[in-house]
Amino acid sequence: MENSIFPARTEFISSRANPKIKSASALLSARERKKTGLFLLEGARLCCDAAENGIEIKEFFATEGAAEKYRDAFLKISGCAKKVYAVSRDIAEKLSDTENTQEMFCVCSDRAVQPDESGIDPNGFYVMTENLQNPDNLGAVVRSAEALGADGLIVCNGCDIRSPKALRASMGGLLRFPVIRASDSAAILYALRKKGMKIFATVASGEAESIVTADKSGGAVCIIGNEGAGVSDEALALSTNRITIPMLGKAESLNASAAAAIAIWEFMKERGSGGNEPR
Amino acid sequence: MENSIFPARTEFISSRANPKIKSASALLSARERKKTGLFLLEGARLCCDAAENGIEIKEFFATEGAAEKYRDAFLKISGCAKKVYAVSRDIAEKLSDTENTQEMFCVCSDRAVQPDESGIDPNGFYVMTENLQNPDNLGAVVRSAEALGADGLIVCNGCDIRSPKALRASMGGLLRFPVIRASDSAAILYALRKKGMKIFATVASGEAESIVTADKSGGAVCIIGNEGAGVSDEALALSTNRITIPMLGKAESLNASAAAAIAIWEFMKERGSGGNEPR
Repeated sequence: MENSIFPARTEFISSRANPKIKSASALLSARERKKTGLFLLEGARLCCDAAENGIEIKEFFATEGAAEKYRDAFLKISGCAKKVYAVSRDIAEKLSDTENTQEMFCVCSDRAVQPDESGIDPNGFYVMTENLQNPDNLGAVVRSAEALGADGLIVCNGCDIRSPKALRASMGGLLRFPVIRASDSAAILYALRKKGMKIFATVASGEAESIVTADKSGGAVCIIGNEGAGVSDEALALSTNRITIPMLGKAESLNASAAAAIAIWEFMKERGSGGNEPR
Repeated sequence: MENSIFPARTEFISSRANPKIKSASALLSARERKKTGLFLLEGARLCCDAAENGIEIKEFFATEGAAEKYRDAFLKISGCAKKVYAVSRDIAEKLSDTENTQEMFCVCSDRAVQPDESGIDPNGFYVMTENLQNPDNLGAVVRSAEALGADGLIVCNGCDIRSPKALRASMGGLLRFPVIRASDSAAILYALRKKGMKIFATVASGEAESIVTADKSGGAVCIIGNEGAGVSDEALALSTNRITIPMLGKAESLNASAAAAIAIWEFMKERGSGGNEPR
């Protein structure tokens, strides 16, 4: 490996039974992530997002082929990773959660970056998901929140924000965007109400106020509920407004991530997004 | 099977090697669906949607457990299926595309229900997807279009509207909603322009007109492009308007199904959805 772009400190791993590989691939399980406070990233783009967003990269694994193919990403990531490992394609398959692996992986520390509600701007706009089960939905919500310019996301229970599927669906948004984890929706909503923020619960009911006409100005949180059960009773009890997306059609309801996209869009328009039509 | 809810004409299949089972499970492949003009539905809900929407059910497979568990659905489906088969759980596993199968399957004819552009109302609002690759996105777009009250969907190339994933993600919308298949976007857009309809191409560019201010009244088609490449040059050339969803945030762009949800929402608001705020 002369002329290789791997740094001199690189270690080589050629056995799938190597303990480093075993512990890294164990991070595909949510339980192991919780136990260790670590998570596994796959792909040049996501690993790069981690490097660019100050996430602590404890271990970086790549094949020679990947290092050549994603040269710029490789240099950026290997520059800030604590340890760098060159691995075989066979090992890359073992670490992979995808059908076509890019053969590049990072083990990252989750503990370093955990914002809590004290950082929430009482005049900002935040999205809160409550018990979302589908990682694709969670990823899509963070992507919409980031793209449309919300100030942050509060994830209350539901699927793991470090699951490989959610990370991919968010296109790295879960690494860049302020994401606060909570396990008690009532507690966090109570704290936000004390800050003077309005709490909007989205519901599928013609009785609720239309999201179009509701006064969405000022500090606000918009709650997107569980795919089947919607917003919980505890969260409804603490909400200041119940809003709905009026529908002309006949499907029972929008997918959680589509409803979230429309809701975030309506809130952000109020805040000066929506281009040429400030309201 | 005395007192069984299976009709008297039911045949029993106990071998995975039975030719009926082999041909039904072959329909999990897009090529086989294309060759035969048949597709396979899984789950009580989707099979029921087919029964309720006049889709020709050629074969209906269910386990005894499923027939009891989803009794109402079973009766409705077995009432209109041409043939009914009682199968073992082992066979249900073979036919299944999901992790937890509901052990209920229909082989349906795709040829019976294929609307074409002649049925398009020149004053209506239609969504057109162009080469969408991800079946979850396609399913989510049809679900949003149906929920928000669009008049129909035009699917130009991309993933198969009869893929099990797309059918599931649409929550049956692909069975209920008017979906026109096309393979030449220029040809269909030319036909729609000749009907006097406006063609809106959604693009991720600050140069395009904001979807908020664009005049969206009258007969219109809104094109959602491929996840990576966006709307094709041929479709752009035939569009009457280029519109964009203005974003304050910093992610590169919205997910295709989130962008579609917001775009459909804005078009339908113009048409009197959006509840209390007619515009």
